[in-house]
Amino acid sequence: MRAVIMDGPGHPIVTDVPDPRICEPTDAVIKILLACICGSDLWPYRGLEDAQQLRMGHEYVGIVTQIGKEVTTVSVGDYVVGSFAISDGTCEICQAGYPSRCRNGSFVHGSIGTQAEYARIPYADGTLVRLAEKPDEDVLPSLLAASDVLGTGWFAADAAGAGPGKTIAVVGDGAVGLMGVLAARELGAERIIISSRRPQRQALARSFGATDIIVERGEQAVAAVRELTGGYGAHGTIEAVGTQESMMQAIGSTRPGGSVGYVGVSHGVNLPGGDLFFALIKLQGGPAPVRRYLPDLIDRIMRRQINPGAVFDMELPLDQAAEGYRAMDERTAVKVLLRP
Amino acid sequence: MRAVIMDGPGHPIVTDVPDPRICEPTDAVIKILLACICGSDLWPYRGLEDAQQLRMGHEYVGIVTQIGKEVTTVSVGDYVVGSFAISDGTCEICQAGYPSRCRNGSFVHGSIGTQAEYARIPYADGTLVRLAEKPDEDVLPSLLAASDVLGTGWFAADAAGAGPGKTIAVVGDGAVGLMGVLAARELGAERIIISSRRPQRQALARSFGATDIIVERGEQAVAAVRELTGGYGAHGTIEAVGTQESMMQAIGSTRPGGSVGYVGVSHGVNLPGGDLFFALIKLQGGPAPVRRYLPDLIDRIMRRQINPGAVFDMELPLDQAAEGYRAMDERTAVKVLLRP
Repeated sequence: MRAVIMDGPGHPIVTDVPDPRICEPTDAVIKILLACICGSDLWPYRGLEDAQQLRMGHEYVGIVTQIGKEVTTVSVGDYVVGSFAISDGTCEICQAGYPSRCRNGSFVHGSIGTQAEYARIPYADGTLVRLAEKPDEDVLPSLLAASDVLGTGWFAADAAGAGPGKTIAVVGDGAVGLMGVLAARELGAERIIISSRRPQRQALARSFGATDIIVERGEQAVAAVRELTGGYGAHGTIEAVGTQESMMQAIGSTRPGGSVGYVGVSHGVNLPGGDLFFALIKLQGGPAPVRRYLPDLIDRIMRRQINPGAVFDMELPLDQAAEGYRAMDERTAVKVLLRP
Repeated sequence: MRAVIMDGPGHPIVTDVPDPRICEPTDAVIKILLACICGSDLWPYRGLEDAQQLRMGHEYVGIVTQIGKEVTTVSVGDYVVGSFAISDGTCEICQAGYPSRCRNGSFVHGSIGTQAEYARIPYADGTLVRLAEKPDEDVLPSLLAASDVLGTGWFAADAAGAGPGKTIAVVGDGAVGLMGVLAARELGAERIIISSRRPQRQALARSFGATDIIVERGEQAVAAVRELTGGYGAHGTIEAVGTQESMMQAIGSTRPGGSVGYVGVSHGVNLPGGDLFFALIKLQGGPAPVRRYLPDLIDRIMRRQINPGAVFDMELPLDQAAEGYRAMDERTAVKVLLRP
């Protein structure tokens, strides 16, 4: 089958690899209907993470083609969405709602390799969610978004304490930040302030529910959020970048007693303890426990209450994946959908 | 009146200062019945914070002797306990339950100066809690503890998610860590693991509810906690030291999805973003919103359900405060009570 491999920094290639097969009795193999490129795929693309012969892709919606003997919740022919993280669903960590750090699972991106025609999904019962019916074609992109960016933005909004009457700031106008806006609105936030300078992303942010757009960054953004909130700062902030500047902007934008939900994969961040201590905030983040949210997200999508698929602004056949990486790297695309 | 002043590092002196008086209509003046020395007072004592002519003390139980014209909730003659932090009780931050970062208040220690015969308490309505009746002499030390170390340990235990069925680890066997043990037990924790090497503190910890004592520190302590918890780590950890090692020990001791409540005043801490991200924990801490917890704590003390006053293992007249600082600095005393 065809699959995307990162053949060194800046060189994603589409090549033939062996078809996946059942290795463990808890595995399933799925035919990928849609895959996409994640902002986190750009770290190896840019050479900031190891990128030698890395199988790429961890977002997917698909159809089950094979199951192992112990798989009970999905059957061949089922339409499924799964998390980017593999989870057994049974350990204490999964049971407590944090499957992205499953004791037996994994969240190393690329480990699933869903930028491909097929993929092996370990712990299928704990990782996949079966759709009750065949989805219409138009909701497939939204279901695809649920497997990472929507679920990740949702976790960030939840961790940021989004809810009725709350003002939520969003740092980062990439796909996850935009999904954070959508999630904050769905969770009832009254006011959603996002930092964005690009007109196209500003428009998307507004369409997902942003009420205020600021163009400042860093300390100027902190000052702008404080000015918009009577000097207090936001009740909660979604951080969706992963840099020192974005984390400090998120912490600074949040009022005492507020919460920062941070989901940008951390690169080169060092948080000064004193600043954090006197900020008196809650900080919650990391690899999002998307599997916990999936049933609810799928339900909202199937009822057409939300349309997170609108975040995809470029679509390519799998064989042209390299063009998609380039577009996301150059920020000419927010998020690229790949069709095997 | 007599008051303790830090006359440079290592030199707390007891000297005559002007009696406090009402400056603002929201002030009260109280006669200090009991005061004490805080672990955080050792930072200026050790020269690690500015210590020139610093008025010391921020824990107190007292009797109101004067009130400003706008004070409505306490009257002259009332017995009162207050937080170490000044809070107006009316701003959005106070109303949300975080009075230690009151918009108009302050939590700079030494700002109240309660190691003295009298003290001026700004924003008396928002800072003090009136006791319904004259307390018996034997509960006064417990009420004193409530004004900081108990309230701070309680916040840490609350932030660490202490509750029925939970295993809570405690980093730090000083007064706050010990109060964290007491709080975790009161909140229903099933198992409480504290790091402590000193037999006297181990005994106190057990008396307050610790179920397991470990003598390891740092990474060895993390390994010990994991071994005691089936490899998972604690559900939550109370951090009550404020150093890099103690913070990393707390983070490492906590399972994914768990919580760290950190209240050790941060000194020289830098948290590595990547470690924090993949830990997938909640981190909440800072200057504890003691005033929020005080009514409940006072109630538990007056009903003699808890006896946090047992944390005081040395008592001195105010004039001998220097001896108390020395004992705490040399760790021959856990916490020193001062009687004006």
